[in-house]
This record gives sequence, structure tokens and C-alpha cells, in this order.
Amino acid sequence: MPQSPIRKLVPFAEQAVKDGKSIYYLNIGQPDIKTPKTAIDAVKNSDIDVLAYSRSEGSETYRQKICKYYSKHYINVTHNDIVVTTGGSEALLFAFGSVMDVDDEIIIPEPFYANYNGFSIASGVKVVPVISKIEDNFALPPIEEFEKLITPKTKAILICNPGNPTGYLYSKEEIQKLAAIVKKYDLFLISDEVYREFVYDNHTHYSIMQENGLENHAIVVDSVSKRYSMCGARVGCLVSKNKTVIDTVLKFAQARLSPPTLAQIASEAALETPQSYFDDVVKEYVERRNTLVTELQKIEGIKVAKPKGAFYCIAELPIKNSDNFAKWLLENFDIDGKTIMVAPAAGFYSTPGVGLNQIRIAYVLKKESLIKAVNILKEALKVYKD
Amino acid sequence: MPQSPIRKLVPFAEQAVKDGKSIYYLNIGQPDIKTPKTAIDAVKNSDIDVLAYSRSEGSETYRQKICKYYSKHYINVTHNDIVVTTGGSEALLFAFGSVMDVDDEIIIPEPFYANYNGFSIASGVKVVPVISKIEDNFALPPIEEFEKLITPKTKAILICNPGNPTGYLYSKEEIQKLAAIVKKYDLFLISDEVYREFVYDNHTHYSIMQENGLENHAIVVDSVSKRYSMCGARVGCLVSKNKTVIDTVLKFAQARLSPPTLAQIASEAALETPQSYFDDVVKEYVERRNTLVTELQKIEGIKVAKPKGAFYCIAELPIKNSDNFAKWLLENFDIDGKTIMVAPAAGFYSTPGVGLNQIRIAYVLKKESLIKAVNILKEALKVYKD
Ligand SMILES: Cc1ncc(COP(=O)(O)O)c(C=O)c1O
Ligand SMILES: Cc1ncc(COP(=O)(O)O)c(C=O)c1O
Repeated sequence: MPQSPIRKLVPFAEQAVKDGKSIYYLNIGQPDIKTPKTAIDAVKNSDIDVLAYSRSEGSETYRQKICKYYSKHYINVTHNDIVVTTGGSEALLFAFGSVMDVDDEIIIPEPFYANYNGFSIASGVKVVPVISKIEDNFALPPIEEFEKLITPKTKAILICNPGNPTGYLYSKEEIQKLAAIVKKYDLFLISDEVYREFVYDNHTHYSIMQENGLENHAIVVDSVSKRYSMCGARVGCLVSKNKTVIDTVLKFAQARLSPPTLAQIASEAALETPQSYFDDVVKEYVERRNTLVTELQKIEGIKVAKPKGAFYCIAELPIKNSDNFAKWLLENFDIDGKTIMVAPAAGFYSTPGVGLNQIRIAYVLKKESLIKAVNILKEALKVYKD
Repeated sequence: MPQSPIRKLVPFAEQAVKDGKSIYYLNIGQPDIKTPKTAIDAVKNSDIDVLAYSRSEGSETYRQKICKYYSKHYINVTHNDIVVTTGGSEALLFAFGSVMDVDDEIIIPEPFYANYNGFSIASGVKVVPVISKIEDNFALPPIEEFEKLITPKTKAILICNPGNPTGYLYSKEEIQKLAAIVKKYDLFLISDEVYREFVYDNHTHYSIMQENGLENHAIVVDSVSKRYSMCGARVGCLVSKNKTVIDTVLKFAQARLSPPTLAQIASEAALETPQSYFDDVVKEYVERRNTLVTELQKIEGIKVAKPKGAFYCIAELPIKNSDNFAKWLLENFDIDGKTIMVAPAAGFYSTPGVGLNQIRIAYVLKKESLIKAVNILKEALKVYKD
């Protein structure tokens, strides 16, 4: 029996209420935002006799409509540059499998989305981390740090923009530095842009697909999960102007036959979602973020990286080991029968021993809940002993 | 750029009508049977505000109901023995990844479902084929043939029962021979049983899960795709009583977060499908198979393995290379503007040079169409020159 394939897993999804305690889930990326009704209604109003496979690369009309969505974001692609996948997750798996052979290396700024580990283990490739720092708000590490790590086995650099778990949004200049280095060493630049819409404070998102001259290097991973609060749909896509990449991805896609048909109907309809929906959602997240950060900063000895995007925030706590702390919160602490579940940040680092005193908080709860949750954190830190 | 990851692909899914010719698709496994209305209606009547992730292992109520389904098939499992997957395809991928490390070997009787190649390449493992013969109707090769191929790297034997592309149904005795050998060498026996219901002529299906003492070795791959003609749902499952296997599979499942939520609602409702639905479907397929085999046998020089299950049939043609023949049919032959698309069987063999004169025919068309399609084949063979 091989070793358990995933080294570190983030706590995830539905979790039982422990010992009758009720729990604020600050650990999961499942938004409470409503799915656009048009998306659900499209499925309800569909007329299906035989729930058949779709094309392996996704339904053609859906891919054509995705292009229109991208053009609104200044990304020019055709439906031939797109393979519809079963969530962004599968797009990541296909990207890893398509641009790397077993034992190849991929450079990823850490902390990073923990499941990148899972996909790299599944593909037999090695993650080479570059540390980004909470003191810098998790900005892009100096490009020389990347350069130092490039070996003949390096095939790609992967970024998440805006970032889970950092909330950091890369600037155009940072993207251009990455573009220059992947061109210089002939690498792929994979950009996980599933949080594209979740960008705050009048910043704008700069996609790697907007960068001229990067056509052969750029691979975007995308998803409807967070955009339309449709995590359960399991629809995403992989986008690249590199024909060989798309052809190879398509081989993986053909092996698993088809992305989900019902969810593609919902996703196609979701593209009609008006800008006002996103405006409202962004407004809500900005308020949640502000509440969260303000409340956190009231805690003594805490360090917080203020997120510019996505809905996660890393906080450094005045403790030694957040893994133990997270368990202790669940098992030994409550205020009026309530406690919190947080994601220990060590799971987002690949370098052993880094981030041990950090946690990730997902601000996917209403403001009132966030205030109560941070208060629990504050009181807990007063009594907790490592 | 790594080599294209999948050596041989079966033509698949929607195909454009070429040069205005209309085509009988004998090459694809997409049934024309109606999806049970209860399954689709369950989605239409569902009340979804937030289309959220389900548990990574699949919704608990759904897994509990699957157990009831299995118990009707004399398979005793609990919901903890089941991980819901995105189609049988993902169950295969997870099974390969969980029981094998890179460079390990899996023995598979050939001809086999061509995408097993894709999943083995994606997992970096090696397929070791055992030839089964059309003369034997593709029965299990002598068990000594398997034994000869076992090396320290062998981790599993994979069968498909009933078989795609062979239509062969393994007997209880054959399963017991396999059980004995996997126990002797401490291997896993993976059984792809997605066609369990499609069993003809009063034969009964004997699942590896019914075999006592095989609990630690048996892994079943299953799917709603063919059972309820719900290929587009993308719901399947992996079943095993081996806790370590399930725990490892769960790691893969957690990395990709969740199987599709809407499709799980449909699949749960599909479990209510009455036996009469299957009786009708089986009756239809038996008639189609009989029609197909009778018509094929009228062709001179043809050899046909009469299927006992699934809806595929392998035919050996009096030609040299069915790949060329299949292309020629599409490009250079028609009767009244109609031609056929067949799957060259070489794609189902792993041993080079075997099966070159065979094709696979999926009998997923109505009888009248099958008669016309076989007539096209017959006339084509009269004029075709290798
Ligand atoms: C950064 C990032 N990428 C990809 C995903 C995968 O999401 P999905 O497979 O639901 O599209 C997630 C989900 O949380 C994520 O946070
Ligand atoms: C033998 C066999 N196994 C598995 C599958 C995978 O089907 P799905 O992923 O739709 O469940 C198929 C589909 O044709 C098949 O024929």
C-alpha cells in the first residue's frame, strides 16, 4: 500500500458539531452567498430525455459564451483555447499532468492552496516552494528567489491570483516579472484565477492572459465555484493559447469522458449574471474583511496580512503551534457553548516548520458571526498555553 | 512538453457529420435509452439556495441508499465502504492512484476499455496485458497466464465484468480463480462493474464483493452512467471493505473537494427506479444483440464473439487493418449517403499488433438502424481492399 498520498489536508466541508458545541467555521471556503437563481432555474427548466455525456472538452455553446465573459475581462481567447473541467480542481490536475513528467518540478510561492500538494503527488511531481512573507503582505518574493530554484527539471511556476490563503493580489508589474522569467527559462506560468472577481479597494485584476507575448507559456485555471457560489456544480476550465497544451489536456479530458452535463447547463446560464450581483458580493466581502481585520487587530500580539482579494486572511498568533491550538479550540474551549474552527497555516506551507504560528481565516460568515468568532479567538488566546 | 499521455484513444462522443454524409455511430457507448424521469425530476424539484460542495466522500444519505441497492445484488457493504466519485472514470483513477506507486504494474485481460491506458499513464503505472481470445468468446485466460506475469511490482489485477469491449460475463468459477490468485500473491482485485445490470440469457452477475475472504483485496468500480442512462451525471463510486484503501481514496477525493452535487440528487432518486425499467432495457438490448449478431454472421469471413452482457460486441473482419478500414468507411464509402463509424479494436489491446483486424460495435442503436448499419458493413467489405 503506498503512503497516504496527501501530506497535509485542510479541514474541509461539512463537519459534525462536536460534543454539543456549536462551531463557527472559519476554516472552509464554502461561501454562504446565494447561487444566482438563473443558474439553478436553467437546470429546472431544461428539457432532458437522455442525460448524455457532453463533449470531453465541454459543450461548444458553453465554451463560446465563456469567451464573451473573458473578453469583458480583457482576455481574448476562442473556444478552442478552453477545455471545460470538473471544477478548477480537475483543471489543476490536468495542467500538472500535461506540462510535467514524473519527477519534474513546479515552483510555487508559499503559503499556497494546500490541495496543490495533492495534485502534485497524484502527478508524481515535486513542489518547490518560494517563501512569501506575512510582513510583505505575501507579495511576490523577489524574482531572484525564483531564479535560484530553477533546475533542468523545473517545468512551471504556479501562482494563485488573488491568493488562497493569502488574499494577496499580484500587480501588473509582478505578473510581468513572472512573465519575463518564464520566457527566459522557457517554463509554463500557471495562474489559478478562480477568485478573479473577488478584488477589493478599487484594485483591478491583471490576468496572465492579458500579457502579450506570453501566449505559449500561460495556462489559466478557472472555476464557477466561487464566482457564482456554485461550488457543488463542479465546473471549471483550463485556458491556454498553447495548442500543444490544449491537445494534451484534451487527452486527459477524453480519458474521463465528459464534464458534468447538468452543471454545464447551470454554468452557461450563470454567465448571464448581472454585474450588480458581483458588486453586491464584493461589497459584502469588503465589509466582512474590514470587520475581520479590525477585530483581529484588537488582539494583542497578532499580525494580520490585509487581503486585497479572495476571502481568506492569514493571521500570525502569539502562540507556537496553531495545529495544537486549533485542536484545543475544538476540544477544550468555548464561550457559551460556542467555539471556532480555524485552518492551521502549516498545511499551506511546503517548507517544514514555517507558518506554525499562523492560521487561515475564511471570511465567509456574516459580520455579526465574524465579530463573535474573533472574540472567541481573543478570549482563547488569553488562556491558551502552548 | 511531455509526450501525449494517452497512447490510444477510442473515438468518442458527438462527432460532426462528415461531408454531408450521415453516420451510424457504432463506436460510442452513449445509450439512447431514456433516463428515468424520477432522476431528472428530483433535480427539478430540489430546493437549492446555495449549490454547495457535498462531502468529499459523497452525500451520506446517498451512500446509505447505495448500500440498499447493493444488498439487492447480494453485496453487503456499509456507507463507510463507499466513496462517491465523478463517474466510474474517477473511481478508476483513484483506485490506480491508491493501490499503486509510480512504476508499479497492473495486469489486465485484453482487449480492455481503452481509457484504462489513460488512467494508468496519468498514475505512472504500467499495464501488463493478458490476451483473451475471440475464439474463446473472451473468457478468462488460463490463470497460469496471469501467474506468469506477476512480479514484485505487480499490485493489482483489473477486470471489467461484464466486459467492455468484449461483452463477456465472468462466471463465479472464473471470479474464484482470480480471488485465489490475488490472495496467494497479496494483490488487489479491481472489478469494473459499471455494466452489472446488463446481463443476458438468464445469466447472473457474480460480483467480486460477493466472494467471502476477499474483503481486503476487492475494489469495485461502479457508475450510474449506463445503469440509468445518466452518462452526463458524472456520478460513480468506489467500493471496498479495505479500510486503508478507502482512507487513501479519500485523500484523493478530498484534494478535488467534492463530487457533483446536482448529479448526486439525480443519482439518489435514480435508485428508486423500478425493476421493470431494467427488465425493459435488458429486453431491448437482448433484441439488439440478437439482431446484430444474426446480421453480422451473414457476412462472409466474419468472426463474432456473442456477448453475454454490456452492449458491445467484438467482430473480426476479413481485412488486415481495421484502423484504415474505419477511416475509409468515413471518407470513401457510403450507401445512399449513409456510412458507419466503428471503433478499431487495436485501441483496446495493449500488445502491439494484436486485434488489428477486429472492430468493436456498440449496439446502442435501434434494431432497424443496426440492420442498416450492418448492411453497410457487409457491402463495404465486398469492395474494400487493404
Ligand atoms: C485557490 C483555489 N484553487 C482551486 C480551487 C478548486 O475549486 P473547485 O474545484 O471547486 O473549482 C479552490 C477551492 O477552494 C481554491 O481555493
Ligand atoms: C468499462 C467502463 N468502465 C468505466 C467507464 C466510465 O464511465 P463513467 O465515467 O461515465 O462512469 C466506462 C464508460 O464507457 C466503461 O465502458
